[in-house]
Amino acid sequence: MTKPERASLQDYLAERVQAIDGVLDRWVPEESIEPASIHKAMRYSLFAGGKRIRPILAIAAADSISDAASGVEHAAATLELVHTYSLIHDDLPALDNDDLRRGRPTCHKVFGEAIAILAGDALLTLSFEVLSRIEHVSAAQKIRLVEELARAGGTVGGMIGGQVNDLEGERKNATPALLDSIHRAKTGALLRASARVGAIYAGASEEQLEAISRYGEHIGLAFQIIDDILDVQAPSEALGKTAGKDEAQQKITFPAVYGLERSREMAEEERVAAHAALRMFDDRADRLREIADFIVQRKT
Amino acid sequence: MTKPERASLQDYLAERVQAIDGVLDRWVPEESIEPASIHKAMRYSLFAGGKRIRPILAIAAADSISDAASGVEHAAATLELVHTYSLIHDDLPALDNDDLRRGRPTCHKVFGEAIAILAGDALLTLSFEVLSRIEHVSAAQKIRLVEELARAGGTVGGMIGGQVNDLEGERKNATPALLDSIHRAKTGALLRASARVGAIYAGASEEQLEAISRYGEHIGLAFQIIDDILDVQAPSEALGKTAGKDEAQQKITFPAVYGLERSREMAEEERVAAHAALRMFDDRADRLREIADFIVQRKT
Repeated sequence: MTKPERASLQDYLAERVQAIDGVLDRWVPEESIEPASIHKAMRYSLFAGGKRIRPILAIAAADSISDAASGVEHAAATLELVHTYSLIHDDLPALDNDDLRRGRPTCHKVFGEAIAILAGDALLTLSFEVLSRIEHVSAAQKIRLVEELARAGGTVGGMIGGQVNDLEGERKNATPALLDSIHRAKTGALLRASARVGAIYAGASEEQLEAISRYGEHIGLAFQIIDDILDVQAPSEALGKTAGKDEAQQKITFPAVYGLERSREMAEEERVAAHAALRMFDDRADRLREIADFIVQRKT
Repeated sequence: MTKPERASLQDYLAERVQAIDGVLDRWVPEESIEPASIHKAMRYSLFAGGKRIRPILAIAAADSISDAASGVEHAAATLELVHTYSLIHDDLPALDNDDLRRGRPTCHKVFGEAIAILAGDALLTLSFEVLSRIEHVSAAQKIRLVEELARAGGTVGGMIGGQVNDLEGERKNATPALLDSIHRAKTGALLRASARVGAIYAGASEEQLEAISRYGEHIGLAFQIIDDILDVQAPSEALGKTAGKDEAQQKITFPAVYGLERSREMAEEERVAAHAALRMFDDRADRLREIADFIVQRKT
């Protein structure tokens, strides 16, 4: 018997995106269900061609632990619900005031601010409902997933905390320590949690979970460094969101603190460290390794 | 031995408020923890002298089932976290645009809209973290509580759904059916869930849970009818929020649809039905009975 040919990363990602979108479509109420406007707004923001990097991380992390993490895409989808809620709220006029997201007008531009606020609230709420209703795992595992998601999304070292620091941070006071703490929390916490959700779902040992967490931290930082670099370099059409906003809003970014060249080196260092964190895993973790490379090489 | 003297409802409520506030104080990060502004905002809105009716309902429901529902105040407190998040978001300029809440300037008036939005998000997120970390109950019960809270707070028959209908409803199209559906969802779902959370925590049988749910529905409706009446009748100082807003905003209310007199009769009917729902319970449910009376008789 010859080993079956391995799908390219591109095909792997495309397949997973399809699976995740299918799951999201099942969990989010149809647009025909009342009140229709909120379900339309939730779906508008959710099905806008996102890369689904967080759920894919969860699935790939589960696959690194076990061949048979059946149904992991349901737990994985909750990360996209939380990510999308955070985008909707971050884009509001009172926060980043963004008109463009994933290549389309932002949620509040289309549905108004009131519905956008409530659509974000609803996606966050739904993420926990989904975790309470997933199958194939024990109640104890589900509760660990609830705690993981809630902490990663919270104020102390979590996504909301990072968002507050980001809002309140001013370029003139930028220090490497502040930059690090903002991004570890703002994007890092949910990316780390994404990998951990998959590992917990698949029944990882504490040692495996620890390794997956370190992997998640490194790719989280790499992801944010690249995001900051792309905001400077890529055109809005490629990003699907307004480019150059960081500069315009005097945000604390890696290029602003370290310069472009050093920022690129740092992203590469994080990529290498992410690979090192996976040393204990066999080739079942190869997708996680490829995703680390992909995150650093991406152009949008 | 003589039976120990039973505390008055007023003393019972005051004691429970103190216990709940103590628990909330333990779960919500201190104001000194970074980022400080978000924790200040969360605490500002949470510790503003709320009546804690939802957590008290949960505790009283648990007490109706079992004498020994140790630690129920932690699960109960999550209802106040969710309730407070909903008040902060509802008060935002894009929604009800309220300046006064619980007798003080609203969260966004003090901390700005961005922090108010994030403080609401954070309270909602924290409610699920708390449920994942409570003690004394099984993981299976915790997961049921997560599902209960998420559904009650959600879009389909839940709090957000009711809020959307309320925002989009216009007085001129007010029908009894629309009024009923708005309030069953907007305030009713969380009040019903409050009673259910306590019952689930205390290990209620399905039959007991069903009875408690019906009780919760009736007092939920009674609560909203009285709220609508008070908005017409009570001065702002007594309510701690802007009176007469419903009229000004052309909200669909019970007095607007049925008139004041019929509204008062309806509240009384709901009170009686709440008592009837508790028929299977012994005198351990007396506090629930008294709370039903209190809800209809309250003046603020």
